[in-house]
Amino acid sequence: MEIKVFKNIMSSNQELADSNRELFKKHHLTVINVMASPGSGKTSIILRIIESLRDKIKIGVIEGDIASSIDAETIDSLGIPVVQINTGRGCHLDANMIRAVLVDLQLENNSILFIENVGNLVCPSAFDLGESIRMVIASVPEGHDKPYKYTSIFESADVIILNKMDLMPYIDFDSEKFYRGIGALKPEAPVFQVSCRTGEGINALVEWLENIHKNI
Amino acid sequence: MEIKVFKNIMSSNQELADSNRELFKKHHLTVINVMASPGSGKTSIILRIIESLRDKIKIGVIEGDIASSIDAETIDSLGIPVVQINTGRGCHLDANMIRAVLVDLQLENNSILFIENVGNLVCPSAFDLGESIRMVIASVPEGHDKPYKYTSIFESADVIILNKMDLMPYIDFDSEKFYRGIGALKPEAPVFQVSCRTGEGINALVEWLENIHKNI
Repeated sequence: MEIKVFKNIMSSNQELADSNRELFKKHHLTVINVMASPGSGKTSIILRIIESLRDKIKIGVIEGDIASSIDAETIDSLGIPVVQINTGRGCHLDANMIRAVLVDLQLENNSILFIENVGNLVCPSAFDLGESIRMVIASVPEGHDKPYKYTSIFESADVIILNKMDLMPYIDFDSEKFYRGIGALKPEAPVFQVSCRTGEGINALVEWLENIHKNI
Repeated sequence: MEIKVFKNIMSSNQELADSNRELFKKHHLTVINVMASPGSGKTSIILRIIESLRDKIKIGVIEGDIASSIDAETIDSLGIPVVQINTGRGCHLDANMIRAVLVDLQLENNSILFIENVGNLVCPSAFDLGESIRMVIASVPEGHDKPYKYTSIFESADVIILNKMDLMPYIDFDSEKFYRGIGALKPEAPVFQVSCRTGEGINALVEWLENIHKNI
């Protein structure tokens, strides 16, 4: 009798992520894995993009949180398809969780799907979900040293957003050090400076995303 | 022959944490496990307390970070005993890491030891280090909803600090919701509102800590 061999958890996550990726391609979905510290503005950025793009492109959202469905309720109130994953004590989403909720989302072909990961600058970066793009958000009040301390997540980013630019006058944020840090880790990733509060910089980000979506 | 049984990782962490705790008691150390999101001001709060207390009480620091020794260098430059633990991809400190570096710190009896955990609102709360006090720091720009989304860490807190109060005028922070959230999780934990930038609220925090240390 053949003995069943269980592969290690990371390798099975990778297989399932690859299978998710194929599925997303088949349906022409642009899937964005949004990763950041707690409170750096993941939901606010998704909301700003929804506001700008919803009349042109279908959008769906998967919300990942330890507990609560606060963010999912906000998105649902806009009439956008959304599902909530509560991870309990789990510090990241994985490819299996995403696969499990896709059927409930009932996304149309050619949609953009945002996956808002658990607020955490460490663990999410190690788990491929099958996404097309990894979006890493930093925010001005977190300080300019984050790329030096949380290297893996910035290294894995396809696009980096610096949010809460409206707070710049009130904070000792050394932009040159921040850009030097991300430049050493991922020089090819575009960086967008935005403020979800004032709307500053959102247009450029949305334009970039539309362009990515056209070519997916 | 007796078969060696390996206990699960959490139970062996607990045993080692209990042993750390005994050791700390024996040497009359007040040990503070400082936990928070990236960039909420863990190091700044430790620095403010050092500034206020160093002439009265011996202080030492263990710095936990994924990468870099930025914070340890700052503390070292003040002549305070400090060691850096780099966790690589590890998302939290554990009791074994603390035990391993204690010998290098060479703390005097009756000291206060700060352990600055990896910036993460999820994983550190599950790992007892043997600390006397768990200090959880939230910051105003992270938003008032953190206690609803990251329940475990606030539930485990012995003291909660709300930092960056100087940014309150520029942010939509609903204090009543924040206090309702932490009140539901840990009503007995004292909460200190501070600003490391302006120094607001630091005296009250330091006074509370001195009192804890007297009675340890």
